[in-house]
Amino acid sequence: MTLPRDYRGQTCSLARAMEVVGERWTLLIVRDAFYGVRRFGEFAAHLSVPRAVLTDRLAGLTAAGVLDRRPEPGAGRREVYVLTAKGLGLWPAVRALTAWGEEHAPPPGGGPRRLFLHHTDGAPVGPGGHCSGCGAPVPPGDLLVAPGPGLAPPGDDADPITAALAVPHRLLTPLPPATAPVRRPPKGTP
Amino acid sequence: MTLPRDYRGQTCSLARAMEVVGERWTLLIVRDAFYGVRRFGEFAAHLSVPRAVLTDRLAGLTAAGVLDRRPEPGAGRREVYVLTAKGLGLWPAVRALTAWGEEHAPPPGGGPRRLFLHHTDGAPVGPGGHCSGCGAPVPPGDLLVAPGPGLAPPGDDADPITAALAVPHRLLTPLPPATAPVRRPPKGTP
Repeated sequence: MTLPRDYRGQTCSLARAMEVVGERWTLLIVRDAFYGVRRFGEFAAHLSVPRAVLTDRLAGLTAAGVLDRRPEPGAGRREVYVLTAKGLGLWPAVRALTAWGEEHAPPPGGGPRRLFLHHTDGAPVGPGGHCSGCGAPVPPGDLLVAPGPGLAPPGDDADPITAALAVPHRLLTPLPPATAPVRRPPKGTP
Repeated sequence: MTLPRDYRGQTCSLARAMEVVGERWTLLIVRDAFYGVRRFGEFAAHLSVPRAVLTDRLAGLTAAGVLDRRPEPGAGRREVYVLTAKGLGLWPAVRALTAWGEEHAPPPGGGPRRLFLHHTDGAPVGPGGHCSGCGAPVPPGDLLVAPGPGLAPPGDDADPITAALAVPHRLLTPLPPATAPVRRPPKGTP
């Protein structure tokens, strides 16, 4: 993730943050990691990101300490990418940018594609991170991501992540569920 | 701001937001607009962004409805860039990413470079946007940005924005102050 020298000269904290996540795909990869996506193939299939780009971005996020690359339990040599404490700290930014996109660039279906609910009482959690039911601040691991009115139903050919997110799912819980078939990304994915 | 076809296919609200601001310089330009920077030359001098890149990013932000390009009052043909309501909605994301950068990529000086204070009582305002003194939610226009412990004193050759931000300044108030000399960016800025 090379940057112009002048850019590196910026010591502002926002500039430093943008050095890590200031790229179109990067925050989408982090967002998927919050949803529970952990495997290369599922990031690639869900985001339709070119695999060479995904390889580069995952390496950058791992080098920056946002993701931790580790062996998948009981999966032999397969590795997964998991958010570190530093990575978990990005949730407010992901949530704020998502809320802005929902308000100012709504999906064709109208209304948000995803709702974020407090898993203990099912009440909506606003962009500020507080439960509209109990008023408590809700960490990402206590959030359910549920389909919203703007979400189109997944097609039969939907990738396993898209299919799994058609029902409420608790953040930071591995996706796809262990019981779901793991489909490979389509051949010819760039 | 061209994007891969697959990327445009993403209807997620975060993906739509990243189409507008998902580039390293873009949120820094928006951040400067919140600080009160309005003129091309001052964006260029403060961010040390290549002028061709700045021209492209300002055009993109204007086309996306984040910035409004308008004549500067009493300045003849000179134009300024001002945040729209859509642009003002980006503050929580800018603040969240800045706070993350402060926590996980602190500047060499240690501590935050900028403090955000409630202009009515001078109390710090946290990343969540609430005043630690009165508890009220504080819109960006009611924030003071003040130098923090991590901010190095500006040099004698500092651009006028860097110099102006060495003292507390109310967000969305034009920078540099009308009384300050307006220096052109250094010759040879790429």
